[in-house]
Amino acid sequence: MSVDLSTPSQAQLDAFFALDANRRIELLAPFVNDNRKATLRGVLDRRTRRVTVALENIYHSQNASAVVRSCDCFGIQDITIVENSSQFKASNGVARGAFKWLTYHKFSQTGFNTPAAYEHLRSRGYKIVAASPHPGHDVSLYDLDVAQSPIAVVFGAEKLGLSQWAMENADLRMVIPMCGLTESLNISASAAIAMSHLRREIDSRLTPEQVRLSEAEQTELFSHWLLASIRDARCVLERVIGVK
Amino acid sequence: MSVDLSTPSQAQLDAFFALDANRRIELLAPFVNDNRKATLRGVLDRRTRRVTVALENIYHSQNASAVVRSCDCFGIQDITIVENSSQFKASNGVARGAFKWLTYHKFSQTGFNTPAAYEHLRSRGYKIVAASPHPGHDVSLYDLDVAQSPIAVVFGAEKLGLSQWAMENADLRMVIPMCGLTESLNISASAAIAMSHLRREIDSRLTPEQVRLSEAEQTELFSHWLLASIRDARCVLERVIGVK
Repeated sequence: MSVDLSTPSQAQLDAFFALDANRRIELLAPFVNDNRKATLRGVLDRRTRRVTVALENIYHSQNASAVVRSCDCFGIQDITIVENSSQFKASNGVARGAFKWLTYHKFSQTGFNTPAAYEHLRSRGYKIVAASPHPGHDVSLYDLDVAQSPIAVVFGAEKLGLSQWAMENADLRMVIPMCGLTESLNISASAAIAMSHLRREIDSRLTPEQVRLSEAEQTELFSHWLLASIRDARCVLERVIGVK
Repeated sequence: MSVDLSTPSQAQLDAFFALDANRRIELLAPFVNDNRKATLRGVLDRRTRRVTVALENIYHSQNASAVVRSCDCFGIQDITIVENSSQFKASNGVARGAFKWLTYHKFSQTGFNTPAAYEHLRSRGYKIVAASPHPGHDVSLYDLDVAQSPIAVVFGAEKLGLSQWAMENADLRMVIPMCGLTESLNISASAAIAMSHLRREIDSRLTPEQVRLSEAEQTELFSHWLLASIRDARCVLERVIGVK
């Protein structure tokens, strides 16, 4: 059995994240080269929470991974995962891609978790927009008003779509205008279209201050990204915080 | 062994498509109900060849299928498939989804087929735009001028991207602006973003006459769609054209 030098132990993570974020950065900065740090800082400056994405019961990990990749590509930092079935398949695919660069909020207790996820999003000031492939929608993607409030777009499972509860309890039901014979876009396609559009909207209609993360959020996230950028994180943490 | 009543025989297809398109429509129209015909006509009116998509060596049939679905959803009628490897995996996935509603042009001879595909596209008046995930691009998706000429967007294989030949011989290299840490979007995500944007562009910047298919093209396609809408096509063809 070989020792895994890259994955930090739980004890290390607990001790490390108990520290102030600035201290974490101070400790790890020497282990990441300057080019990489500049890249991380540049990307960090474009991160936003003004738009977020929630996925209800996405069971194909390939789709979940594609959505996560799109979030990263458009600087959307937070993703909410709601799992209302007993199969937690999506989480593996999501974790692999998202662990490093995104912040994800998972609701996967026994039972129906969508209300808790909506409450969480509303407590953070989001207007909840359910992506609907069917008629009866309130608004087109292209008419969403990003200036009015932060927006959380919720996407449902591949074939079944969003749960009835999720549809009925959203603030708005949104459709991506289409003109074809097949019923709907693939979830990864819908999410990519929505994110690319909303990213362009917030960049063109809001000030940079309204779009980007606060100083404190950036500092917190930067410390996570430094850790995620270090190959032998377990070794390094043992050295800098003295915990195995 | 059961007899397949839905799939027409090759002899039936040969005889049927040897007929004039108006005659084909006349023969099949009684077997498709009026609602369905109205739906087909409505979708047909939104079909376009002003924008088209080409895929070079897409080997994941799931990605190919998602691109095909997006083409249909945004009314993009033609898709060009280039297969430069000996594995024709993509074609199965593509055929299932696309056979019915899209027109696809396949280049899959032994050897390197991208030049033949480019020649085919250029002979139809397309400016060839290579989707590039890497630096060195000429233009952003959002700066493409759809008014200047019809556009064919070419997407490459999942990990390797487009071949060097495809990149160098395109008229333009295009990038979708991104700001993340991971390298690029999933192919189905990129294609969906490009298609949804270009569809909106042609609808807003061109006249309906410039966007939609000619009368002759619509008639031709309508005859295909009628056939694709008939469940027992083999039975029906036997009845109307007397060929088994």
